[in-house]
Amino acid sequence: MSLLEPQVGAAGVKRTTILRMDGGGAHAREDAVAIEEPLEIQLAFDKRGVRVTKSVSVTMRTPGNDRELAAGFLFTEGIIDGAASIAGWEMPEAHRPGPAGGNTLRAVLRDGIDVDLRSLERNFYMTSSCGVCGKTSLEALRVTGRIALDPDGATWDASMIGGLPEALRQDQVIFEATGGLHAAGLFDAEGRRVAVREDVGRHNAVDKLIGAQVLGGHVPLGGHLMLVSGRASFELVQKTVMAGIPVLAAVGAPSSLAVDLARQFGATLLGFVGRSRFNVYSGAQRIRFSKSGS
Amino acid sequence: MSLLEPQVGAAGVKRTTILRMDGGGAHAREDAVAIEEPLEIQLAFDKRGVRVTKSVSVTMRTPGNDRELAAGFLFTEGIIDGAASIAGWEMPEAHRPGPAGGNTLRAVLRDGIDVDLRSLERNFYMTSSCGVCGKTSLEALRVTGRIALDPDGATWDASMIGGLPEALRQDQVIFEATGGLHAAGLFDAEGRRVAVREDVGRHNAVDKLIGAQVLGGHVPLGGHLMLVSGRASFELVQKTVMAGIPVLAAVGAPSSLAVDLARQFGATLLGFVGRSRFNVYSGAQRIRFSKSGS
Repeated sequence: MSLLEPQVGAAGVKRTTILRMDGGGAHAREDAVAIEEPLEIQLAFDKRGVRVTKSVSVTMRTPGNDRELAAGFLFTEGIIDGAASIAGWEMPEAHRPGPAGGNTLRAVLRDGIDVDLRSLERNFYMTSSCGVCGKTSLEALRVTGRIALDPDGATWDASMIGGLPEALRQDQVIFEATGGLHAAGLFDAEGRRVAVREDVGRHNAVDKLIGAQVLGGHVPLGGHLMLVSGRASFELVQKTVMAGIPVLAAVGAPSSLAVDLARQFGATLLGFVGRSRFNVYSGAQRIRFSKSGS
Repeated sequence: MSLLEPQVGAAGVKRTTILRMDGGGAHAREDAVAIEEPLEIQLAFDKRGVRVTKSVSVTMRTPGNDRELAAGFLFTEGIIDGAASIAGWEMPEAHRPGPAGGNTLRAVLRDGIDVDLRSLERNFYMTSSCGVCGKTSLEALRVTGRIALDPDGATWDASMIGGLPEALRQDQVIFEATGGLHAAGLFDAEGRRVAVREDVGRHNAVDKLIGAQVLGGHVPLGGHLMLVSGRASFELVQKTVMAGIPVLAAVGAPSSLAVDLARQFGATLLGFVGRSRFNVYSGAQRIRFSKSGS
């Protein structure tokens, strides 16, 4: 049985011939798979008059919205404070260009932007004394001083929250084609969809979503709710808090550290969000419960 | 509404009080969440008579089976060849012990085991010229010479494959309690369940599953099928091939690079595995189609 070579189709999607097995036997058919390609994010900046170029991340992502991905990553890791930190973008020649183009993106920082090289190394080298260890990440969050989750601000109607996954799904273009992507959606306090991003990597979808707001000058994102299609990990709560988003809602389950972190920073964390139910793990004061329930 | 402090319960699970929203309103209840804690994996070995200690990975994992996780990671990354490479384990004092114990595990290699420091740096520093970039990872796979996917060996009956997700679910102890874990299961050619492992991280579940076989001296794993509860990424196919497992089956979708890699190495890749259907993306020769279909 010959399986044809795949062809690059619409952005984010590659078409390929597969064998479909069902009750009626085996059938060759055209199918779409979500594209996964590496992206290296680099930083260029002046340090005492010398231009420094540093690689800060290599991630497997779905090509597209790469500047958003880079901006969101740099912002939620505390490396830049906003779009004003970025003077421009360069695309160094990739040593392995993917089907959708280059795989290296360099953010050139404005003169005078102070880059904490130790923070860079924390992100890139993942040493045990800093890295993704819970304790130090929590300390990093405290240090940034960016946390403003408006504890007395916006609230969300419980009966509206159940409808958000369906609203998210409506914008999942690549998921519709491939069935294989994580999605993250940003909603305001009335439940209106502000933006949706998709990626093979759950963190990348969130970075793209937040990065678009960073580039548009809309951070911090008080008064907004972020919905993710999968589970809520520690790192997703971290990114939510760094972006100033008061509510993280997940279609799947949260981890223990995600719950701990949300409670520590007063963020609202919702899990198992479905049409007629969800769980509140933290920050119930932002959820309005109508008399008839949700 | 007060949310009580969480308490550590059964291994891998933390109990906590949450608010459950459903059609009847909001109800406080006890709930279980999957534990997520950092684990740092270190290596200790002799290099020209000097003891060297290197940190090779920090991962957010569900505590438990940590030696398996470390062994599986070291093996699928090509750092060790098998259990015989490991002389023993040390647990250096953790700078932040989690509720389930330490968060640092050190594999002490036997004298004379040659460690490729560049390979270590590839894994740890993720530089763009090597790292997770597809091209170089593919080269690494070729170099190891460990690939023996027995192209003319075991085959699997199509009608049996649909039942594997249910068999996997039966052993998902933590998932049952929390609804929030990835699982990986190893099955033989008759569909018998050999082992199942769970973790908040998809890669960790696979590393634990393979690591248990490494420590038991059972690698390479020709004649076996690995089923994962989520999607099939490039890195999961890489680990499958490194372990010599000829078939990777995923309940979710594969990415484009996962398909490319499986085809390049002649591995069988199945996606969307459900009770009555699945897709074959590569290696259909290992699937037996009975006359009446699946």
